[in-house]
Amino acid sequence: MPNYKLLIQYDGTKYKGWQIQKSTDDTIQGKLQGVISKMAGYPVEVTGSGRTDAGVHAKGQVANVHIKDEITELTAFCEKMNSYLPEDIAVLSIEIADERFHARYSAKSKTYLYRIHISSISNVFDRKYVYSYTDSVLDIEKMRSAARLLLGEHDFKSFCANKHMKKSTIRRIDSISITESGKEIQIEYTGDGFLQNMVRIITGTLIEVGNGSRSAQSISDTIKSLNRENAGFTAPAKGLCLLKVIY
Amino acid sequence: MPNYKLLIQYDGTKYKGWQIQKSTDDTIQGKLQGVISKMAGYPVEVTGSGRTDAGVHAKGQVANVHIKDEITELTAFCEKMNSYLPEDIAVLSIEIADERFHARYSAKSKTYLYRIHISSISNVFDRKYVYSYTDSVLDIEKMRSAARLLLGEHDFKSFCANKHMKKSTIRRIDSISITESGKEIQIEYTGDGFLQNMVRIITGTLIEVGNGSRSAQSISDTIKSLNRENAGFTAPAKGLCLLKVIY
Repeated sequence: MPNYKLLIQYDGTKYKGWQIQKSTDDTIQGKLQGVISKMAGYPVEVTGSGRTDAGVHAKGQVANVHIKDEITELTAFCEKMNSYLPEDIAVLSIEIADERFHARYSAKSKTYLYRIHISSISNVFDRKYVYSYTDSVLDIEKMRSAARLLLGEHDFKSFCANKHMKKSTIRRIDSISITESGKEIQIEYTGDGFLQNMVRIITGTLIEVGNGSRSAQSISDTIKSLNRENAGFTAPAKGLCLLKVIY
Repeated sequence: MPNYKLLIQYDGTKYKGWQIQKSTDDTIQGKLQGVISKMAGYPVEVTGSGRTDAGVHAKGQVANVHIKDEITELTAFCEKMNSYLPEDIAVLSIEIADERFHARYSAKSKTYLYRIHISSISNVFDRKYVYSYTDSVLDIEKMRSAARLLLGEHDFKSFCANKHMKKSTIRRIDSISITESGKEIQIEYTGDGFLQNMVRIITGTLIEVGNGSRSAQSISDTIKSLNRENAGFTAPAKGLCLLKVIY
């Protein structure tokens, strides 16, 4: 069966995350499967590069789907998909992929962006895509020092929301770049994969370093402890966006 | 009484426009008056540079308000205002103004931006701030030719939604700049003032020129006719944003 690769954007605000749930179609995967199944005439399964949490956004989510008949007009198919999809989900492109291409297993790395708005004045037009943090000043240099300790391959069990994770919790973070622009701090993470809530828990921990409630150096102990309770709070979903997936 | 000048941003999506209405506080002016009156301890009147329609946004609306007691801590006052305001309205700054300053009468010119999204693929993150137009290709050069005919001082009665307008419908448009960037056409208008729905009706008319349903040269006759029925459709409110007011 021909295998197709989809590049997808969504505003996750009103969805219960990527993964389809039995009782509801308030999920991105659910919406996509619904539309493509309708167009194909039979149920299809859309496989994402990973599950984004409820409320998390994506500018470059990737998925693949097997469709029995070859799609001859990819642009027309894409337009039709978009006409059926709600305004907060868009398929940017659809292309034929190798039959072995698997959006999750074939992924080499992923890049996420976390946006922190640090003003008491609301960012009116981007308010749904930033975490508004005004409790205290954040020391960027301390956050960068802490971030450096997270780079490389580690067992990130302390930064995983799933306490009963049976598979490996070892991941590799290639880069964490923290930039300040106007009233916003942006943290961009690239790595081979991220555990459940991992980006949000790391972000919460870095914020706690930035506001002085924990030291940058303490991060090494936090990693070593393999205990979620030693890491920081889970930063809100709305500030997080999956930027791209590299294959 | 000290007179204060406010710089305001809002996402107009869920409001019935700027101007307060008796039965509801679903207006920007209503929200601002409510908050400042609460802070002042007595009813105040917030005067805007102009009324934006229901659904129209602003990145640089200006208003003034007279408050009996001088505000000693302007930054703190501004922060407090923002803490009371909903997330889709923000006061960027408050400053003391000349006692004769009047946000509407003192305005020298205004700049509006109209954004047209010309792809069948939804602009997921800006979808509430663009008019999605996919009916046909728009010829930018023809739109520019038509726009040139609108420049300068004219009686813009044909482009005014208010049929019973008793005051002068003469206005001066200083510039109309049409630019294309990716999947978006942006039309920026600067002039000494705009009649009710004038920017939206001009935009609708320019779109009709762009899609070929009327000629660029016909605009002169449309102006001369002083008849709303000869102009184009009223482009949707969501694509419009008040960018700035010059004094």
